[in-house]
Amino acid sequence: MASDSLMILDSILSSSGFTYSERLKSRYTKWNIRASEMSKRTFNPIRAIVDNMKIKPNPEKAMITLSIGDPTVFGNLPTNENILQAMKEAVDSGRFNGYAPSVGYHTSRDAVANFYSCPESPLKAKDVILTSGCSQAIELAINVLANPGQNILIPRPGFSLYKTLAVSLGIEVKFYNLLPERSWEIDLQHLEALIDDKTACIIVNNPSNPCGSVFNKSHLQNILTVATRNYLPIIVDEIYGDMVFPESQFIGLGSLSRSVPILSCGGLAKRWLVPGWRMGWILIHDRNDILSREVRNGLVCLSQRILGPCTIVQGALEDILNKTTQDFYDDTINILKSNADLCFNALSMVPGLRPIRPCGSMYMMVGIDIDDFPEFKNDIDFTERMISEQSVFCLPATCFEYPNFFRVVTTVPEDLMLEACNRIREFCEVHFQSQEHCSVPDIECDK
Amino acid sequence: MASDSLMILDSILSSSGFTYSERLKSRYTKWNIRASEMSKRTFNPIRAIVDNMKIKPNPEKAMITLSIGDPTVFGNLPTNENILQAMKEAVDSGRFNGYAPSVGYHTSRDAVANFYSCPESPLKAKDVILTSGCSQAIELAINVLANPGQNILIPRPGFSLYKTLAVSLGIEVKFYNLLPERSWEIDLQHLEALIDDKTACIIVNNPSNPCGSVFNKSHLQNILTVATRNYLPIIVDEIYGDMVFPESQFIGLGSLSRSVPILSCGGLAKRWLVPGWRMGWILIHDRNDILSREVRNGLVCLSQRILGPCTIVQGALEDILNKTTQDFYDDTINILKSNADLCFNALSMVPGLRPIRPCGSMYMMVGIDIDDFPEFKNDIDFTERMISEQSVFCLPATCFEYPNFFRVVTTVPEDLMLEACNRIREFCEVHFQSQEHCSVPDIECDK
Repeated sequence: MASDSLMILDSILSSSGFTYSERLKSRYTKWNIRASEMSKRTFNPIRAIVDNMKIKPNPEKAMITLSIGDPTVFGNLPTNENILQAMKEAVDSGRFNGYAPSVGYHTSRDAVANFYSCPESPLKAKDVILTSGCSQAIELAINVLANPGQNILIPRPGFSLYKTLAVSLGIEVKFYNLLPERSWEIDLQHLEALIDDKTACIIVNNPSNPCGSVFNKSHLQNILTVATRNYLPIIVDEIYGDMVFPESQFIGLGSLSRSVPILSCGGLAKRWLVPGWRMGWILIHDRNDILSREVRNGLVCLSQRILGPCTIVQGALEDILNKTTQDFYDDTINILKSNADLCFNALSMVPGLRPIRPCGSMYMMVGIDIDDFPEFKNDIDFTERMISEQSVFCLPATCFEYPNFFRVVTTVPEDLMLEACNRIREFCEVHFQSQEHCSVPDIECDK
Repeated sequence: MASDSLMILDSILSSSGFTYSERLKSRYTKWNIRASEMSKRTFNPIRAIVDNMKIKPNPEKAMITLSIGDPTVFGNLPTNENILQAMKEAVDSGRFNGYAPSVGYHTSRDAVANFYSCPESPLKAKDVILTSGCSQAIELAINVLANPGQNILIPRPGFSLYKTLAVSLGIEVKFYNLLPERSWEIDLQHLEALIDDKTACIIVNNPSNPCGSVFNKSHLQNILTVATRNYLPIIVDEIYGDMVFPESQFIGLGSLSRSVPILSCGGLAKRWLVPGWRMGWILIHDRNDILSREVRNGLVCLSQRILGPCTIVQGALEDILNKTTQDFYDDTINILKSNADLCFNALSMVPGLRPIRPCGSMYMMVGIDIDDFPEFKNDIDFTERMISEQSVFCLPATCFEYPNFFRVVTTVPEDLMLEACNRIREFCEVHFQSQEHCSVPDIECDK
């Protein structure tokens, strides 16, 4: 408001008997600025659950946080020196300060295409869209394929972002089940039963967050069969691609698909251990040009809304992909594998817990026989008390729509992994009251 | 599709008399994957216009591109050495590789708050949201304030992204006029007349792209008066903030607003000459806590969809803001001012052109007396022919919803600026046919 207008207002008000501040107060109540419906629909279940948990560790024990899917937090998994060198060279070159095309520099897209190209599904630069992290890749992929009112099929348990993004866009989600007894393979009958005429696509996550599972070739082919039969494209979240233990093999879904269009979402975050850099991509696998009609152009249009990733990281990308040595990748896998084995073996011996052995990524799911812990209502209760008593924080799998499990992050240093497992064991031993055991006296009483 | 299924399909098909490839072909026609409505609504008018222009330069003259709002393209405006140093230190520190909070590191937000805080409107870290470039800042600001079916008021001529983003979200835009005869001030009567009960906010751009105008204090106060009277928040795009010539003064709208909530969008792109780095921000100026009810939380929710800018740039931000020396800013301004003067003076002498003197940013608008160029239908025609004859590319202002103007980018080296002006003069002298002059014989015939 102009200061002269204020002076005029002041004089009017004082003659009317109101003080200026009284009048101001009444005026501000007329300001009724609400947040948009979309912002209200944008809901992060992990935040909602964690923010409501009583996270007050036991002051006598140092906190061990096994809840955050960020491999950098403990400092034991630094990124490769060659990767840092590539970044500094990109800075020094002065060549990567201006705007890049909204889908990324051609040379950077070409580098990604070459890195992921395979004889069965060759990729060119035009098949790659660079994005601000894998999150934006998933956002663009969902956004280009589905309209408000349509639905997409997502895994349960599964990474919460799929639902967050879809619901914020007014797109419905339907959960298909993963089967813990089959190493978290998809219940394909359930998946197919969910498909209706409003289904826009299927999201597959392999290797899985939170399960740590890795699908074998035959299961991936069966998923493609369901998609083919129903003419549904697949968004595959492969951000943990190649992060699998030696006894498993990662197979990119795009390499297997003969007809189903695949949008494969990935990025530098996990395998290259730099999640904050926000470098992601979509690889478009589409051997029969089904997406050329509209979807490719739609992706380009959507990429123009916010533009892509930081040009310095784009400029470094070719060297990051080509100069990172195999032993860097191997070292990460060895640590993850060793921690996973250690944690699985330790928790397998704990009464009331049912860990499920992971084959890759950086997570393990652990089932809680909740009836054997009568003090706790559910996984949230259970993990909350594990913090207050043992200062060990694991995410309750309700965050992944899968109650009575919790997720362990396996990127911690070995000594912390061991210590955490010991504390979890101690916690369970204190609170475990087998219902089988408890029922024995009753039965005896009946005799 | 599983290979065994394919074999079965093959045997069924060969027995039915169809070849496999014939059948395949018919099957692929059942794949009917369309792009979403949102992707189809996401329309970049500059791309649409430029992609349809015949941009084939005169082979005898080197192309001079005055069309791209990227100060780095000519290499005459390198960023500051301290800025590059800050980036390399952030890389080397190893501290900025993990995820940052979705609104940015607290220390980085604090650095921005301190940089822009002023006694009239003090800012704290909580008042800053870091975004992936100013584009994402504008996207979040529009997205949190407006719902589909509502409208927002945007300037004409104006930066095309406002419309692109709003329409993609299903939000209507209404254009308010800027007045070239008043140095592109807003036609406030027109602005206010557009407001209806579905208006969610006003977007103000100061300094202006494409106009190069800078609003004075009294005009800014008058804008606030309109907003106050109508209880409308303002999104102010201040990405060219402080990029004003010595005779002008940049005043942040937030510093003047006593009651109107202001979301000020800015970033490193222009003033620090690194648009590719995608570091933007929203400054929340809200002295009466009107946005605390819902909008602040809505911004945080929306920021969680894709997460913010690259952590390396976030890590360098404090040093970028605090260690960039004043002479770096001054050097940029001197070059822009000198080019603007040179270009304005040169084009003022050209028959049929009416340049409007800029006071800041890196653009100048030039009116075309299109009736005096009877060979050309409009500004698109005019600029297209300027390319094919003179190899000078300026954007037709139809790109900014303002026909019969063109925009000149003033970041080029001085010799190119001069050469471009000479060629524009030559072009106009060839094609100018004053209608006043032509009409003289007719009048004489009538006598």
